Amino acid sequence: KTTYQIALIPGDGIGPEIVAEAVKVLKQIERTESVQFEFSEVYAGGIAIDKFGEPLPDNTLTTARLADAVLLGAVGGPKWDQNPSHLRPEKALLGLRKELGLYSNLRPVTLISGMEARSTLKAEVLSGVDLIVVRELTGGIYFGEKKREKTAQGEFASDLLIYHEHEIERIVHQAFSIAQNRKKHLTSVDKANVLESSRFWREIVERIAPEYPDVQVNHMLVDNCAMQLLLRPSSFDVIVTENMFGDILSDEAAMLTGSIGLLPSASLGEGTKGMYEPVHGSAPDIAGKGIANPAATILSAALLLRHSLGMETAAQKIESAVQKVLSQVRTADLAAENEESVSTQEFGDRVVAAL
Amino acid sequence: KTTYQIALIPGDGIGPEIVAEAVKVLKQIERTESVQFEFSEVYAGGIAIDKFGEPLPDNTLTTARLADAVLLGAVGGPKWDQNPSHLRPEKALLGLRKELGLYSNLRPVTLISGMEARSTLKAEVLSGVDLIVVRELTGGIYFGEKKREKTAQGEFASDLLIYHEHEIERIVHQAFSIAQNRKKHLTSVDKANVLESSRFWREIVERIAPEYPDVQVNHMLVDNCAMQLLLRPSSFDVIVTENMFGDILSDEAAMLTGSIGLLPSASLGEGTKGMYEPVHGSAPDIAGKGIANPAATILSAALLLRHSLGMETAAQKIESAVQKVLSQVRTADLAAENEESVSTQEFGDRVVAAL
Ligand SMILES: CC(C)[C@H](C(=O)O)[C@@H](O)C(=O)O
Ligand SMILES: CC(C)[C@H](C(=O)O)[C@@H](O)C(=O)O
Repeated sequence: KTTYQIALIPGDGIGPEIVAEAVKVLKQIERTESVQFEFSEVYAGGIAIDKFGEPLPDNTLTTARLADAVLLGAVGGPKWDQNPSHLRPEKALLGLRKELGLYSNLRPVTLISGMEARSTLKAEVLSGVDLIVVRELTGGIYFGEKKREKTAQGEFASDLLIYHEHEIERIVHQAFSIAQNRKKHLTSVDKANVLESSRFWREIVERIAPEYPDVQVNHMLVDNCAMQLLLRPSSFDVIVTENMFGDILSDEAAMLTGSIGLLPSASLGEGTKGMYEPVHGSAPDIAGKGIANPAATILSAALLLRHSLGMETAAQKIESAVQKVLSQVRTADLAAENEESVSTQEFGDRVVAAL
Repeated sequence: KTTYQIALIPGDGIGPEIVAEAVKVLKQIERTESVQFEFSEVYAGGIAIDKFGEPLPDNTLTTARLADAVLLGAVGGPKWDQNPSHLRPEKALLGLRKELGLYSNLRPVTLISGMEARSTLKAEVLSGVDLIVVRELTGGIYFGEKKREKTAQGEFASDLLIYHEHEIERIVHQAFSIAQNRKKHLTSVDKANVLESSRFWREIVERIAPEYPDVQVNHMLVDNCAMQLLLRPSSFDVIVTENMFGDILSDEAAMLTGSIGLLPSASLGEGTKGMYEPVHGSAPDIAGKGIANPAATILSAALLLRHSLGMETAAQKIESAVQKVLSQVRTADLAAENEESVSTQEFGDRVVAAL
């Protein structure tokens, strides 16, 4: 049996509850496949601030570095919202991404059948939605120089949006390969009519495109993309964009299907290491009640098997099992009014049973 | 009779056709109110590039400077898309905004009854949508320093997102006043968990808030706002945000109602001068066919009367007239399949008649 090291970072709010269910599912995979997982649970986010006075303790980073993959629940909550910026939970996320070199964030958005009613979009608009946002994750304005200065003309603050050639190249290559394995349609999103970094981005996409002759590529301005996602979501296949635009557009896209509780994400770099987490947040208001939906975290574990461990079949098994369970029962967030709902644990148990 | 100077910038594509209808409507206002308009038509955008080799000729800028208000159709089109950046139509827009000091862009989004079918959102989600996006328009990453450099480690490109205190203060004050005259609810949108400029923005909003004790203010992260616009659009009243976020969110918001052909916008600065234009683009594909929808431009003329000339009653008259005409006939873009549609001119004539 091959042994893999999995770092678990449950984090805050509902994080521990939902990660526990994903671990259950991974343990079931151990029983049926010839793999073995060694789980190391470590702290990051608000809970790490409370315990160790810092959002991303060295031990957490080291464990994540040594692991084959990282499974994360969620970080953050109102408790730490007023903290100074170095003591905020999201510093842990940004630090993990940067330190592990996870330069690409993949967010598949698909309509799970039976979920149309949850969406604020009309069913006919949703039909056929199957897209993936590929977001650059370790560059751009997130990591450029920040300034705050008092001058004779008053105070100012600034953030630098900066991209180096290689940072754009690697994510664009990745997006093209992903498109090759899907519907072969890539939409590169930028603001080339205003930003120099976007013009640079667009040039690099153009330069790389001939290496993927089977992929049809088009450029779209970010404001137009925000509209087209609403107008014709099913016209997209792969969207690739820089960090900040990706943050906004991937959340907009996630909301299309109305079931953000079902969306997983993968953050990848060179090699196979990755960090996997649900798209939704830590939902402190329902933490500890046993009613959180673990589906997105379980589906994130499936992405972990697929992208970090090369276990495509096992990944698909989990995805089918989740689909199946969802067609039978739902957690409170997805249940219709007056419909009975199952607990976080029961949902996990049913996925295990369906496997 | 008071005389007002109105600079007309028809621009490209359908611009000339739709501006002509708005002028018709303003001329009707001249007949019923004690005002007189002196219209000066000038060139900007692609047509100015073609005629004078620059998107914003001096004469255009001077005319706009001397005018009491500017009415703009639309600029841009595929013809100029490959031009180098100083020869692109949108330079005209950016130049007019900056040179006229129009630091605030107002985009009201309301559901016009009878238009629900046009939206990709469900009718129950749309019900009650009545928001306005107040976007900072002359600062931020649009105007910060741009760089492109080759280094030993390869090329890079950068754009600086920079805000000075007074730039944030004036737009925030304006947003608070607008909220005071509406539902008294202000949502300030930023990315304070990542950007220094956003933390600065948030501090200034907090500092100014006590001056408007009747306005309830909350802060929302831009990614969350992109989701909430889809999830609960009717929960918003006034949204205030920086230039780039405003560009994206106002287009997303515009798309909610499904009738972007009906949305006007106003760009304002100190004093009463303003520039008014439809939210939609120059639609080169339908230019010259007489089928473009002039409603958003006519409604922009109404905003011109309201904000630049203090003619609230006349503005409301135009708005009611457009509403009335829309309940009777529609241009091709809004007509249902098999429904008869009216031409651009006929729509304008009907608005005049309804006045
Ligand atoms: C928490 C925050 C820093 C983070 C981001 O903006 O990247 C989050 O919104 C995300 O998308 O993962
Ligand atoms: C054309 C472009 C420069 C402009 C902008 O980004 O401001 C447009 O999108 C707008 O919103 O008016």
